[in-house]
Amino acid sequence: MDKIIPEKTAVLVIDMQKAFVEPGAALCIAGAKKTVPAIISFTDRAREAGASIVWVTRSYEADGSNMEIPRRRDLEARGLMGVLAPGTTGIDSIEDAEGLEPKDEDVRIVKPRFSAFFGTELLKIIKERGIDTVILTGTTTPNCIRTTAYDGISYDLRTIAAEDCCSSATDDIQKANMDDMRRIGVEIAGSEELLDCFG
Amino acid sequence: MDKIIPEKTAVLVIDMQKAFVEPGAALCIAGAKKTVPAIISFTDRAREAGASIVWVTRSYEADGSNMEIPRRRDLEARGLMGVLAPGTTGIDSIEDAEGLEPKDEDVRIVKPRFSAFFGTELLKIIKERGIDTVILTGTTTPNCIRTTAYDGISYDLRTIAAEDCCSSATDDIQKANMDDMRRIGVEIAGSEELLDCFG
Repeated sequence: MDKIIPEKTAVLVIDMQKAFVEPGAALCIAGAKKTVPAIISFTDRAREAGASIVWVTRSYEADGSNMEIPRRRDLEARGLMGVLAPGTTGIDSIEDAEGLEPKDEDVRIVKPRFSAFFGTELLKIIKERGIDTVILTGTTTPNCIRTTAYDGISYDLRTIAAEDCCSSATDDIQKANMDDMRRIGVEIAGSEELLDCFG
Repeated sequence: MDKIIPEKTAVLVIDMQKAFVEPGAALCIAGAKKTVPAIISFTDRAREAGASIVWVTRSYEADGSNMEIPRRRDLEARGLMGVLAPGTTGIDSIEDAEGLEPKDEDVRIVKPRFSAFFGTELLKIIKERGIDTVILTGTTTPNCIRTTAYDGISYDLRTIAAEDCCSSATDDIQKANMDDMRRIGVEIAGSEELLDCFG
């Protein structure tokens, strides 16, 4: 793998909020909780090396008015409307998963859809910082990681997924999606291997 | 499945060009050729019913200057640079796959990336026509169909994939991607079933 220049790199942490991560949360992604230690370690060391850390979370109005149509139907049917609203707390909320602690110098973005680029200022922010490389961490691999990865390639960014920092509902989904991404040129590697390439 | 209103529907035919479809083409997707009869039948009958048919193809400058970086590297390494350039003809070209015959009233779009929405006027065109539903056909399911599907959902369009009109390199890839799309609210059905819902 080519060297990774920390100053030109953004590490994105996607949707690692309690509602998607904590065991017992109604929207929990089964594989997410066990990635927390790797994400903490990776973001701490990448920040120290000089990378930008960008925390991307998902939130909607409590009435679901700005929600994707299928999600609104699903959450309504399950009596879960409002759990991703601004200001929510507790296990089904938008709060950062336990153990994750964004620093003041990090960037925070709220995204309205799957991709971290869709309807956000992410592209503007990373261009302003001279960033040309994004490393993806978070959940869930088939949806928000993958759409962000395809947008990353489409915007001509070097696009990398830190495999042990990404999660899915099942191992099969995780593997199939990593394989699909690798085939279009997303670089896939473990977070330790990536840190070894920082230089 | 809810009724489909033809006048509010666009059928997208994605990347069904010789380079990706004809057996023996260097970039051939194994499953693509066998979807041609279903795509011909479906587009003919959907057009007759009043739907807009949008033919979306992929093309790049012959020097690869506007190509995604990983694709440029791949095509360069394989000696295939230029096969998707405007004006190419023959088996490795941007010409419509054999048997596909867009009509004068259809729409043609050239896209620079995976999603039919990325860097194109597709959203503007379908909004101008009052379209709120897109039905996806073409190749390849994990890349251009899927990115277009996620963008469709993100733009609050009813998003449907005509399963027998979409194709992948292997059956496993096709199934895994259809399953992932179904889980986020993309409606998946055969083209005959979809025509039965036109009304």
